[in-house]
Amino acid sequence: MRPIWRDEELDRVRVIDQRRLPHHLEILELKTVDDAIYAIKEMVVRGAPLIGVTGAYAVFVALKNAEGPEVDDDFLKREAERIKSARPTAVNLSWAVDRALTKVLAQSDILARVDAARNEAAAIAEEEVENSRAIGRCGLTLIEPIARRKSGGPVNILTHCNAGSLACIEYGTATAPIYEAFSQGINIHVWVDETRPLNQGARLTAWELGRQGVPHTVITDNAGGHLMQHGLVDMVIVGTDRTTHTGDVANKIGTYLKALAAKDNDVPFYVALPSSTFDWTIRDGVADIPIEARDPDEVRYMLGFTGDKDYLLVPENSPAANYAFDVTPARLVTAFITERGICEANETDIRRLFPER
Amino acid sequence: MRPIWRDEELDRVRVIDQRRLPHHLEILELKTVDDAIYAIKEMVVRGAPLIGVTGAYAVFVALKNAEGPEVDDDFLKREAERIKSARPTAVNLSWAVDRALTKVLAQSDILARVDAARNEAAAIAEEEVENSRAIGRCGLTLIEPIARRKSGGPVNILTHCNAGSLACIEYGTATAPIYEAFSQGINIHVWVDETRPLNQGARLTAWELGRQGVPHTVITDNAGGHLMQHGLVDMVIVGTDRTTHTGDVANKIGTYLKALAAKDNDVPFYVALPSSTFDWTIRDGVADIPIEARDPDEVRYMLGFTGDKDYLLVPENSPAANYAFDVTPARLVTAFITERGICEANETDIRRLFPER
Repeated sequence: MRPIWRDEELDRVRVIDQRRLPHHLEILELKTVDDAIYAIKEMVVRGAPLIGVTGAYAVFVALKNAEGPEVDDDFLKREAERIKSARPTAVNLSWAVDRALTKVLAQSDILARVDAARNEAAAIAEEEVENSRAIGRCGLTLIEPIARRKSGGPVNILTHCNAGSLACIEYGTATAPIYEAFSQGINIHVWVDETRPLNQGARLTAWELGRQGVPHTVITDNAGGHLMQHGLVDMVIVGTDRTTHTGDVANKIGTYLKALAAKDNDVPFYVALPSSTFDWTIRDGVADIPIEARDPDEVRYMLGFTGDKDYLLVPENSPAANYAFDVTPARLVTAFITERGICEANETDIRRLFPER
Repeated sequence: MRPIWRDEELDRVRVIDQRRLPHHLEILELKTVDDAIYAIKEMVVRGAPLIGVTGAYAVFVALKNAEGPEVDDDFLKREAERIKSARPTAVNLSWAVDRALTKVLAQSDILARVDAARNEAAAIAEEEVENSRAIGRCGLTLIEPIARRKSGGPVNILTHCNAGSLACIEYGTATAPIYEAFSQGINIHVWVDETRPLNQGARLTAWELGRQGVPHTVITDNAGGHLMQHGLVDMVIVGTDRTTHTGDVANKIGTYLKALAAKDNDVPFYVALPSSTFDWTIRDGVADIPIEARDPDEVRYMLGFTGDKDYLLVPENSPAANYAFDVTPARLVTAFITERGICEANETDIRRLFPER
């Protein structure tokens, strides 16, 4: 089961409502562009590759709903801008929307345009699946030597947020090497950061790993440093929402703290990403990647299996701040795991892997 | 209102049930030693100085309940051991219990023993209040130059967990310099770490600061690093449950991550503590301070204003781990703020302040 798919019979786009996991598995249909924007903004769907695919399908939905003479290029471009601005940090969203739009604008006939959008969205989804598989194979080569060194003892991998199948169509980015190693019979144990405020680790990563039978333990976001001090983490693997071609990594808020702890304890810190997540324009990630500030009520209230805002954590009048991402400077990253292979977190080595950029 | 007090008329010990704050202010009576042990273990009371005072009052309760010939020294020593083992990390507990026990054992008459325990518990409480006031005055000297440098702009102070009045009878340790500066009219703003899993920041520190009118914003434990990268934190002040005389600091899990981020961003990282929190025996904090592992259900479920375990965050079968503290190595600490003054985080400078040890 994928987090987004097109119902082939009815030609409709459906998604898992990830706000309701792990206790409820609910499906929503994206009937309109506004539905898609809502799904991205409210994190019905989340994760850089998935919101890219959702953005591309939103272009398809725009065309499908607007068959007729009013679908001029300007209208499409405006709709594309609206979709791209649903969330600011992940670069995959604008990358995928632009890709779908380019294919559409190359056609003039409305039916050909609908087909072009549908096909391009599906193609992006399949490419992300292939990317994830390739990332898994690359990442396996980093896990194998640790498994040999530990001669059968578990390889303890810490991850933050959810960069799994739910974020990336299938296999995931950070989880792809984990699933690959697990399927090879390597003894794996995953420390799952809870990932406040929206608990993507406790809710989504734990759910995915549990369904695949991968041993895991949920910990608070506070715990990773202590575990590393005591030799209980062999490696960290996280995903990313945007990584500069100089190696700075935007990912879910709190990632930077884990990178610091990994550095301080000589634990390798890997970032797994498809090429669609690289930003080839920005040089200084900390200064220039836009960090989304979300609704403070996500911090003030605990959202969980009901999805209702019914659990006020703080005093009635205490304000909260809710930065969604942070940037881990390249100097704290051991290596990137991409679909093309592994590279160091600096411009020279990233460009070696992506010479066409 | 203090978090623990003796009702003078009825000669009974009462505490605020801190599990129920901020939405409910409930008072419990410590009628028996078991009540006191329950209160410490289940975190009805928490915070190093407060659990010390509670331990001393538990010795008083033991004597008060057991008036008669059966109160021999061996019984008292066994009760003292039982109280001291309620929680392992904070050193104040055994320090205060031993102090009360010594005074008691110096008397032979049962009524004199009850009086000795009552008086010693009260004396420890008053000393901690005095210590907090002195810590506040010392800490003020660190805040004033920042306030001058920022010429009226707010001094942004980040704190983790609750080392406030609720943890320390009055004024607090980490909060004492904040309250002192605020009362001097300095423009202060506090970033309050939520402090999962038990949310002492979001529930208790925010409540205290709100009651005193100190401007504050609650953030997730993940956010501090990002704030420091962007110049939004001028200093960090935390408390501690046990600090070695070599300068290693055990405090609520997650403190270490904030110390790393402070170091990485040249933000001063201060630890405020009374002398009762120093451990004069252990040299290597990371290796030798016992870190309490608490019930994993504190992570799996969200405890909040109802106090009921009604909010499962993780999939039904996902296990969780719950380390309560971590140790921040001395090299990451800018200075200690104690009731005797400010010192660097190394043995030489700590002993300079406490030559009698």
